[in-house]
Amino acid sequence: MSETSRPGFMSDYMEGAHPAILQRLAETNMVQAAGYGLDAFSERARAKIRAACAAPGAEIHFLTGGTQTNMTVISAMLRPYQGVVAAETGHIALHEAGAIERGGHKVLALPAADGKLTVDAVAACLSAYADDENRDHMVMPGMVYVTHPTEYGTLYTQEELTAISDVCRAHGVPLFLDGARLAYALSCRANDVTLEDIARLTDAFYIGGTKCGALIGEAVVFPTPGTVPHFFSIVKQCGALLAKGRLLGIQFDTLFTDGLYERCGAHAIAAADRIRAALREHGYRFAWETPTNQIFLALTPAERERLEQHVQIDFWEKISDETTVMRIATSWATRAEDVDRLIAAL
Amino acid sequence: MSETSRPGFMSDYMEGAHPAILQRLAETNMVQAAGYGLDAFSERARAKIRAACAAPGAEIHFLTGGTQTNMTVISAMLRPYQGVVAAETGHIALHEAGAIERGGHKVLALPAADGKLTVDAVAACLSAYADDENRDHMVMPGMVYVTHPTEYGTLYTQEELTAISDVCRAHGVPLFLDGARLAYALSCRANDVTLEDIARLTDAFYIGGTKCGALIGEAVVFPTPGTVPHFFSIVKQCGALLAKGRLLGIQFDTLFTDGLYERCGAHAIAAADRIRAALREHGYRFAWETPTNQIFLALTPAERERLEQHVQIDFWEKISDETTVMRIATSWATRAEDVDRLIAAL
Amino acid sequence: MSETSRPGFMSDYMEGAHPAILQRLAETNMVQAAGYGLDAFSERARAKIRAACAAPGAEIHFLTGGTQTNMTVISAMLRPYQGVVAAETGHIALHEAGAIERGGHKVLALPAADGKLTVDAVAACLSAYADDENRDHMVMPGMVYVTHPTEYGTLYTQEELTAISDVCRAHGVPLFLDGARLAYALSCRANDVTLEDIARLTDAFYIGGTKCGALIGEAVVFPTPGTVPHFFSIVKQCGALLAKGRLLGIQFDTLFTDGLYERCGAHAIAAADRIRAALREHGYRFAWETPTNQIFLALTPAERERLEQHVQIDFWEKISDETTVMRIATSWATRAEDVDRLIAAL
Amino acid sequence: MSETSRPGFMSDYMEGAHPAILQRLAETNMVQAAGYGLDAFSERARAKIRAACAAPGAEIHFLTGGTQTNMTVISAMLRPYQGVVAAETGHIALHEAGAIERGGHKVLALPAADGKLTVDAVAACLSAYADDENRDHMVMPGMVYVTHPTEYGTLYTQEELTAISDVCRAHGVPLFLDGARLAYALSCRANDVTLEDIARLTDAFYIGGTKCGALIGEAVVFPTPGTVPHFFSIVKQCGALLAKGRLLGIQFDTLFTDGLYERCGAHAIAAADRIRAALREHGYRFAWETPTNQIFLALTPAERERLEQHVQIDFWEKISDETTVMRIATSWATRAEDVDRLIAAL
Repeated sequence: MSETSRPGFMSDYMEGAHPAILQRLAETNMVQAAGYGLDAFSERARAKIRAACAAPGAEIHFLTGGTQTNMTVISAMLRPYQGVVAAETGHIALHEAGAIERGGHKVLALPAADGKLTVDAVAACLSAYADDENRDHMVMPGMVYVTHPTEYGTLYTQEELTAISDVCRAHGVPLFLDGARLAYALSCRANDVTLEDIARLTDAFYIGGTKCGALIGEAVVFPTPGTVPHFFSIVKQCGALLAKGRLLGIQFDTLFTDGLYERCGAHAIAAADRIRAALREHGYRFAWETPTNQIFLALTPAERERLEQHVQIDFWEKISDETTVMRIATSWATRAEDVDRLIAAL
Repeated sequence: MSETSRPGFMSDYMEGAHPAILQRLAETNMVQAAGYGLDAFSERARAKIRAACAAPGAEIHFLTGGTQTNMTVISAMLRPYQGVVAAETGHIALHEAGAIERGGHKVLALPAADGKLTVDAVAACLSAYADDENRDHMVMPGMVYVTHPTEYGTLYTQEELTAISDVCRAHGVPLFLDGARLAYALSCRANDVTLEDIARLTDAFYIGGTKCGALIGEAVVFPTPGTVPHFFSIVKQCGALLAKGRLLGIQFDTLFTDGLYERCGAHAIAAADRIRAALREHGYRFAWETPTNQIFLALTPAERERLEQHVQIDFWEKISDETTVMRIATSWATRAEDVDRLIAAL
Repeated sequence: MSETSRPGFMSDYMEGAHPAILQRLAETNMVQAAGYGLDAFSERARAKIRAACAAPGAEIHFLTGGTQTNMTVISAMLRPYQGVVAAETGHIALHEAGAIERGGHKVLALPAADGKLTVDAVAACLSAYADDENRDHMVMPGMVYVTHPTEYGTLYTQEELTAISDVCRAHGVPLFLDGARLAYALSCRANDVTLEDIARLTDAFYIGGTKCGALIGEAVVFPTPGTVPHFFSIVKQCGALLAKGRLLGIQFDTLFTDGLYERCGAHAIAAADRIRAALREHGYRFAWETPTNQIFLALTPAERERLEQHVQIDFWEKISDETTVMRIATSWATRAEDVDRLIAAL
Repeated sequence: MSETSRPGFMSDYMEGAHPAILQRLAETNMVQAAGYGLDAFSERARAKIRAACAAPGAEIHFLTGGTQTNMTVISAMLRPYQGVVAAETGHIALHEAGAIERGGHKVLALPAADGKLTVDAVAACLSAYADDENRDHMVMPGMVYVTHPTEYGTLYTQEELTAISDVCRAHGVPLFLDGARLAYALSCRANDVTLEDIARLTDAFYIGGTKCGALIGEAVVFPTPGTVPHFFSIVKQCGALLAKGRLLGIQFDTLFTDGLYERCGAHAIAAADRIRAALREHGYRFAWETPTNQIFLALTPAERERLEQHVQIDFWEKISDETTVMRIATSWATRAEDVDRLIAAL
């Protein structure tokens, strides 16, 4: 059921939460719990995430949304004179309304390939700073930021992520991975980057909840304890600390019980794979290839009109009068009958 | 049921949400809705709040917590060289970990009486700035901030709030009211400040949800449209915009249906009144008088020990070896049997 | 005389100040004057600048350096959610160590042609924002920044500057001109942009002193009074207010007496023209053409070595193993014998 | 000579610079020097200051004014969630237009005694934070700031400064001393705090030039090398780096040659002592006692009028209809005949 009558493939945050989460919220509703993430639910969620990451000493904090998490982690880890390296198509570079700059930091945007930073671009950027005679007049790259999956629905390979991590470590620059849609990577056949890999290769990352089955919530993981002293105060100062931290703890506890997080992802990927196969069969052009829950089509005006008569899809960008890129997104909530309807419309 | 066996009167954010909210979240869970607060639930909530405030043109935005709301509204309404006037005991002055300063603004703290700014102190502060020959070297007071109820559980009278509002308007300085616990004022016999009054007397205020029956959520109201251009972008930049804005819209829609918000408040006040009466009867000393859901006791070590054997209450401050101020807080969730147990312990 | 024995063409800020300035500082040294730019010297300087700009109502403030001036003016004129559009080669984009971002603002860098923003790029940027459905999640362009002369020694034509100004005004976006080296434009035959034009076409600009004959100092001009209320306090808050504002007032008073500012520029341009002619005659390659006091050469290793044996010139960038761009800068202080020596070395 | 005919005792920054400085600027004017403080003059000045402080490894940077120096050093040494402890009468607390807050930091103002922080107040503040259960919701004191002489013309004793330093070190909190008027302390009989003491007892301090004989300039000293990595970039980012750093280097080189800095101070103290003696003799009331170049009088309207007929003095504050505090300031530039005239007016 949609606010309009056409099923929506606009994004992966159009419904509420996985029913198991609502049920758990109801069951625990009248339990009194400590505030600010110090409750037992949050502790249980942390323990399960540590286990899933094979990072027994990891420090874990729960925040409410992606932009908030990015701005909090990035300003916590940078010194004031440092900036963060990102793909020019990265969320922090384009779609966070200047949240990183509000914290005083420049986004050092590099050209991207299908949403991904290349190891060569990262290495060149870090070396160029190190080698520049005028570097003391410039913004020092103090962190590298990647998204996995990217905003373009693409994935880093383990080899690529390892190479970027190696370059970062060689320069003493921390690597931060934005996993707003991480469930859709983890459940994807094409993905060879596990949670353990991420915990091993990065200095900070977050496991997205909002787009992956939760009402809201992102779990920040610092694999190495002590990475950011006083992070609790920083979260508070950034307006990112919930009095009812239980709301986040209960959700992540549920998502990391019995593999729910991966199941949420797998549901979306299965739907996306069905749609991709049908699109290919009907000769639709992909703007670029993706293995995850987001599909990007290069549509003619006629194709777009036909599709939009039956389903809601997302405008991405207009390339020419003849071609518009449109996005189809599935999620943990996508219904089989809506996928059928979309396929029938092709 | 508590995480410990003793019933907790530690605060008003120890449980989840009013059951009507959970039920509504469940009912609407699979409805697809637009993101970022542009959904129909949020629109309905806005309409109901406008009606409750008798402010038909009011602009309303939903945020997730008190510190976040304060930092967002304050930095949106101040120019960079301005500061915000607050009671030295105000939340923004003490317990927001520097969130206001992170936005670049000084909190101009004034002495408070039982948590309240006095009109005289406000008038003196604004006049002193206006009259100071060196004012251009000083932080200009650009906003006045009050809480209602205050952090000390006290209330402004309509007369007091009107006087402060008049001073502010005479100086062209906006007045902002933090209503994190507003339900507990509105439902309180001693209160003569209505939502309509607040909308009339202030330039911005927020209606607290987190401490008043919601899982999370605060509703920012600008009674006059156009008060802060581009507030949506400011919210985004502050990391305060939820992708699933529906979570807030559904909750406020429910709270403002059939008087639930006031009923949440009334429940807490009734419990607090019972406790107050019993305390008075048993000769306990109040640190200061309050008519709302927070009770502040000046306890001897023996009294404190006796109470804490049976219930959990909140440490506020140590005045001397002989006297400690402890807080008892009730809420929409307080159970009659827990109040009984507390009273029995006296 | 140089700290080394080779004459230096490294930059235009290697000497002290034009002797007329030192003399005037000595003459006025024991006169008592009000602090913070409220002195009579500063007032006289303001009057002369207003006259030179044909902007009788202009508000004028004196600051000490270019980065400071850029950060102060830009953060004074932008709202927190806005960014500043600049050439990707602009000083604020590259060489201010993140000063703009420290004030909370993104530099929206556009591709540049020989250091210049094109009107097409500016128009496209402003329109793209206005047309983007997601613009509320993005940084709003709130100002356009140009340098004249640019960091590449090039000049805007009056036609180009008018076109950019027109686009800005059509979008309601102020235009700010960084004139750190303005004297070297004003005295240049190729230049058709007068001070009056700049005052007419921009919303704020500064007249550079540090690189144009003063010890230090930049004169910020707001042609329209009331452009930035409380700019004095903003300057103070940015740490940019001198107690001894007289130091700046006296210098600009001197620079704007009897055409000294233009004479400083003309001296440098005459020297640069002599050098350019000799270079051309000897077949040197220019990296790009410039009519101002900065000359950019594309040198082979042998050419570079030969030149550097006799004079000091500035490394700009390495293009290939075969070609390095080197800069020669003249100034108000360039001595004829040093120019002779440079030319002899060719 | 004054802009008005009455000699001015308004402040210590009413004239230009000590003639020896102007002379040295003239002598070196056409020497070419490297920019940004990397010149040989600055290096010589640093060497002399290191010697004067008996701190051979000290790192020294030259900035242009007091507010700028405070904001740069404080934001360089604090982490974002930290604030700076200061007397409520301290310059950073009152008269810097929010420069510290613009950098994101709260000024934690403590009650002061005649402009001085007491060791008890500092110890209580640092302990209170350490002991507060809610400290993670509060601003952490991350630095202690003192002025010497204070804004009230008073001095810390070596014993007091040592005690404050000890408390700071016990809490791991750096101590920063603002020496805007340091010359007037060093040359004062009552002072027992030497430059060596300051270098030993603090983690950062600055030696004021602007008010002590220079045109402009403050020398920041970090006694321990490596205290603030990348301070050069921080200075640049704060808009505090002069292209012509030579201007500051030459001045401090001159001030620290042949004891000029102390002589500037001694001149002012001698004048102030003459005035103090005369005032005492004539029965004037001191608002509070000071041994430095600033004298604070509690004047009746008649006394004030009489004095102001003959000399210009500075309004400080109005205590009652009967009493106004006025300030008399002497400086390195105070002329004997003006002192005579002031004394005659008594």
